[in-house]
Amino acid sequence: MSIELKTLTKSYKKNLALDRVSLTIEKGTICGLLGRNGAGKTTLVNLVGNRDFPTFGEVLLDGVNVRENDKALKKIYCMGADDLIPVNMKIKEVVSSMRYFYKSADLNYAEKLCKDFRLDMTKRLSQLSTGYRTIAKVIFAMASGADYIFLDEPTLGLDANHRELLYRLILERFEETEAAFVISTHLIDECAGLFERCFILREGTLIADEDSETLRSSAFVVDGKTEQVLLFTSGMEVISRSELGTLSSACVKGKPGNVPAGLEISKPSLQQLLIAMTADEKRG
Amino acid sequence: MSIELKTLTKSYKKNLALDRVSLTIEKGTICGLLGRNGAGKTTLVNLVGNRDFPTFGEVLLDGVNVRENDKALKKIYCMGADDLIPVNMKIKEVVSSMRYFYKSADLNYAEKLCKDFRLDMTKRLSQLSTGYRTIAKVIFAMASGADYIFLDEPTLGLDANHRELLYRLILERFEETEAAFVISTHLIDECAGLFERCFILREGTLIADEDSETLRSSAFVVDGKTEQVLLFTSGMEVISRSELGTLSSACVKGKPGNVPAGLEISKPSLQQLLIAMTADEKRG
Repeated sequence: MSIELKTLTKSYKKNLALDRVSLTIEKGTICGLLGRNGAGKTTLVNLVGNRDFPTFGEVLLDGVNVRENDKALKKIYCMGADDLIPVNMKIKEVVSSMRYFYKSADLNYAEKLCKDFRLDMTKRLSQLSTGYRTIAKVIFAMASGADYIFLDEPTLGLDANHRELLYRLILERFEETEAAFVISTHLIDECAGLFERCFILREGTLIADEDSETLRSSAFVVDGKTEQVLLFTSGMEVISRSELGTLSSACVKGKPGNVPAGLEISKPSLQQLLIAMTADEKRG
Repeated sequence: MSIELKTLTKSYKKNLALDRVSLTIEKGTICGLLGRNGAGKTTLVNLVGNRDFPTFGEVLLDGVNVRENDKALKKIYCMGADDLIPVNMKIKEVVSSMRYFYKSADLNYAEKLCKDFRLDMTKRLSQLSTGYRTIAKVIFAMASGADYIFLDEPTLGLDANHRELLYRLILERFEETEAAFVISTHLIDECAGLFERCFILREGTLIADEDSETLRSSAFVVDGKTEQVLLFTSGMEVISRSELGTLSSACVKGKPGNVPAGLEISKPSLQQLLIAMTADEKRG
């Protein structure tokens, strides 16, 4: 079972938000959907969830186009960055209305999550702070019973304790249900441990589609005296470089090979790698 | 020059959002306004900015109440978590209209910031992604020319590169203008270096008002074998404890005194300390 994006493209007037993106999301995986502000992550999720339509290309669920296809869409839940749920509804009303569309929505589980996060279900969405509004949306998504759950910035405005709780709950739910989770976030170091696979967008183009370990092993960081680092990396594909006094650090594609004494080699963190891979793109 | 909060209190029906908070914000300092989701941070900022009125207590600017006091309010800019600016306005329109209220708004500086963040000023707020909407609001605040600038979650939805850029710009602007910055954030480890002073709210009550270093020195972390940690900390004020196999870590108020061999003592990070000080409160 999988969702397949085929040359998915979306343009808004002169702006190409998504440019021929093809990728496959397998059920039973947690994926990171990563990229800078404005790279096209939300556009992608909106197209998958049928909130917007592609200019070109298609989204298939088990081979069938999801476009205006209710049966397919019932298997997909896309948490909204924008407020698609009437803000005057109470949490418990939203939860109990979920069954109209998501037949296998798990209302007991939604209640459990509200307890875990101490979210008062009698409150209206409009009464919640930024952090609690995110928590409410995450709860609707996690309890939807969908096979493919897209969480767009699920930590937006969450305090550190709540973020830790959320990561634990996602892992637990993943193990119980084997749903696919696609998580878009800017707190990459915190989430890196969750991701089995990473999709990286840059200016609307998919620049990486790899499992997290392969991705981290695709580059290395070398630290040392600037002149030595420059000499060692000459001819190599340097993706980012920073200097501090007489010392330098460079993130380089490929394998280090033989390393001269005086230089330190390490694996980049996923966040370091992403910063290096997506720095200096133009945005709007 | 300073803003003084005197027994500031706000209740919504049965909910006491802010309970007799007294504190002083001096010009020329960067302060952290910290606390969990729902602790009262946004309520506090709304009261200072006259977006809401206290049930009890007052906010004074240089001794004068700010309530419906335009002259005082022109010196304070509170970045909005909610959208108080019409979302159909273009960025450049918002910027050029700022002068109506904030006479010393710096339009050139706003333009510079838009360039730094690559924010297209011809776009409408409604066309921006979550991250870019935050960036736009931060730019309005930073360029307002106000003496007291409140930034409520200025990193909401910002990617890692943009967060680094923002921290650098805040420091630069602070050095140039000597304005006070009051920053409310949940990414405490990233911002800790900026804060000279910290205000910590817990369930609407101010539980700490100290300079950052004093705060971090007010507690210590002890790591080691669980039984040894338990023995060492017995009778001490333990604010949090975690276990991993046969090992334990405890965050303890006060000074460690004589430490037996086998135990490791370290300073808590600001985030660790905050998690310890604010864990397990009730919320809504």
